[in-house]
Amino acid sequence: MSVKVTKQEALDYHKSPNPGKVAIATTTELETQRDLSLAYSPGVAFPCEEIKKDPKLAYEYTAKSNLVAVVSNGTAVLGLGDIGALASKPVMEGKAVLFKKFAAVDSFDIEVDATDVDKFCEAVKAISPTFGGINLEDIKAPECFEIEKRLIEELNIPVMHDDQHGTAIITTAALINASEMMNKAVEDMKVVVVGAGASAIACSTMYKELGVKTLIMCDSKGVIHKGRKDLNKYKKDFVVEEALSLEEAFTGADMVLGLSRPGTFTKEHIALMNEEPIVFTLANPTPELFPDEVKEARPKAIVGTGRSDFPNQVNNVLGFPFIFRGALDVKTRKINMTMKMAAAKAIANLARQPLTDELKESFGDLTYGREYIIPIPFDKRLMVEVSSAVANAAVQTGVARVKEFDLEAYRKNLAAMI
Amino acid sequence: MSVKVTKQEALDYHKSPNPGKVAIATTTELETQRDLSLAYSPGVAFPCEEIKKDPKLAYEYTAKSNLVAVVSNGTAVLGLGDIGALASKPVMEGKAVLFKKFAAVDSFDIEVDATDVDKFCEAVKAISPTFGGINLEDIKAPECFEIEKRLIEELNIPVMHDDQHGTAIITTAALINASEMMNKAVEDMKVVVVGAGASAIACSTMYKELGVKTLIMCDSKGVIHKGRKDLNKYKKDFVVEEALSLEEAFTGADMVLGLSRPGTFTKEHIALMNEEPIVFTLANPTPELFPDEVKEARPKAIVGTGRSDFPNQVNNVLGFPFIFRGALDVKTRKINMTMKMAAAKAIANLARQPLTDELKESFGDLTYGREYIIPIPFDKRLMVEVSSAVANAAVQTGVARVKEFDLEAYRKNLAAMI
Repeated sequence: MSVKVTKQEALDYHKSPNPGKVAIATTTELETQRDLSLAYSPGVAFPCEEIKKDPKLAYEYTAKSNLVAVVSNGTAVLGLGDIGALASKPVMEGKAVLFKKFAAVDSFDIEVDATDVDKFCEAVKAISPTFGGINLEDIKAPECFEIEKRLIEELNIPVMHDDQHGTAIITTAALINASEMMNKAVEDMKVVVVGAGASAIACSTMYKELGVKTLIMCDSKGVIHKGRKDLNKYKKDFVVEEALSLEEAFTGADMVLGLSRPGTFTKEHIALMNEEPIVFTLANPTPELFPDEVKEARPKAIVGTGRSDFPNQVNNVLGFPFIFRGALDVKTRKINMTMKMAAAKAIANLARQPLTDELKESFGDLTYGREYIIPIPFDKRLMVEVSSAVANAAVQTGVARVKEFDLEAYRKNLAAMI
Repeated sequence: MSVKVTKQEALDYHKSPNPGKVAIATTTELETQRDLSLAYSPGVAFPCEEIKKDPKLAYEYTAKSNLVAVVSNGTAVLGLGDIGALASKPVMEGKAVLFKKFAAVDSFDIEVDATDVDKFCEAVKAISPTFGGINLEDIKAPECFEIEKRLIEELNIPVMHDDQHGTAIITTAALINASEMMNKAVEDMKVVVVGAGASAIACSTMYKELGVKTLIMCDSKGVIHKGRKDLNKYKKDFVVEEALSLEEAFTGADMVLGLSRPGTFTKEHIALMNEEPIVFTLANPTPELFPDEVKEARPKAIVGTGRSDFPNQVNNVLGFPFIFRGALDVKTRKINMTMKMAAAKAIANLARQPLTDELKESFGDLTYGREYIIPIPFDKRLMVEVSSAVANAAVQTGVARVKEFDLEAYRKNLAAMI
């Protein structure tokens, strides 16, 4: 399933048939003078007046109910770094089309020319009435933590920084399945996280929530420990007592999560791990180690990368479209940890189910095992499983605004959308 | 062509088949793993890098080239007044669908929760990389003047507050044709403007640009004259020397533009005007005077309203979609007065042409004359005429960024889009 694309192919794709990847569609009839009188003046005054009286009716009479902003300032785009707001637009449009394609969520990409936390938050807060949810994207650490925290506190619509939580949710799903496969409880595992950026911090937080007790995080200067004087407050949450070497960190480890760069650890490090380790090398496009290199050291390793041309692709598209689908459908105020964990468990569980015939035709007969611990993005059952789990968790934790929620009916609705 | 819509019809229209009127459409293929690799990681990195190197390539590789933001803070919505950002959303979505329907311009509606000029401008500036143009909408005076001025100065994409210039352009078109019909030069006309809000000020400015020398503006306290101590700087531009009464203002007037409320002038005032006056009563939905009331006083009057159920509807949709179509197509930095005047003249000229057979079928055989001095919104030739006039004026005045412009070829392209 190797998919290589050339620069020219990518540029042509973005140019044709029209520049860019998104357009607007009208969802109502607009052919006659009467349609015009309904869609605009004078008829449009009626929904305006209703919403003025009862703001929640915006969910009945406008696209807000199904509309997510994909918002970035372009400070940490893919592997490209800080390329600025304008140059990030193709990525944000791409994210918007993934929302639409995978979960029928409408999405405006919004590129914000503001690197300052205050300015960025002010702009997003100001435009927030437009949207039913905010997907933050490709914002560099540590600003992204403060931005997400503040927007979650100050807005009454769900806000999620996907770079943080997307990877956390997908790799947590993988960890749940690996734990079963290895027949070892996460509580007893030793986990090494190489990288200490936004995603690494979110992953580590979620693993601890899942039950992991031993977690060692490393940044570019080595293991993050109590004696270090150069740590921001987010890294400080993960200090270990001793000033371990990287080799000591890897020794006997059950899992390593690489969110760094090629070469930050080697197959010699893998050889220090347990016999059947879980190894995620998510540097993109070139992973810290390729799967064959990992397997030279540990043939029974469960390996995942960020790439579609190897098994177990950790792809955020397994999460965000369906998480927001569920969040929007029950009009949740927040996306809390219970909802994220429900998403991870639903993803994990789907990998244990046999592929549909349709998927088998395209992807072969993948069966639950080392080479298939997380589903593939084109598995249409993801929407039913993940969105319903997220929506149900929102209702159970009291952050949903819908008054009535029938889980089975909702699952049927989702299934009908596929 | 009376089109009445009930509250329930309007609410149902906004609710069904989905809440609201706009959705996102994807414009590229997105079916396979390869498509995914082109639309998103890793392929998307190529256009990002190109745009980083040369920002104007955003027009080649993203939807920016055809994307206008319809931006409002909801402080002066239709006749509803200050209903706030959220409640204005149905109107802004409506505007977005008009852009799409009439001129194939994609448009995101953005509701900004900020009444303060600084905060509003900061938010719009911050998100401006997203867009190829900004259509400001339903922002109250006098803030709207400062907001528009500042955004025009500080952004390098076209910005236009349609409430100001839309009505100005359409009524200027009407004035051009009325001048011909009355066989009286605008330089010799006496024009009364009843109302002194955003639209009234913009109309008056444009009439003066056209050549009108005698213009009397009235606000709720009467004629705006030199002795008044209660005038903001925008009204001050239109003071007359003497403290005229409203009756004195109307006496011998050739045109009255009502942008006020029902009852601010009466048919007794109309009876003071010249024999063949032009009378626009644009208060909406109830005009200052209905056409039959005007004609009781002046049977030969040329009357227009804001309503679709009377002749000569002054409808901004005759202007904004095509003005932005032209502005986007030549990548203009500004929408200047020359472009606006070109739009007005193109609209005026189209009313002098016979209707197409298609239009005759739906609207009867309207011919140039008192009951038909401005085209109807469904005249598809508007795009060819107005957009090409605007684009050409942008090129001629040096505010267009395109290097080559072939007017005839562009007109052919527009005609092919109809």
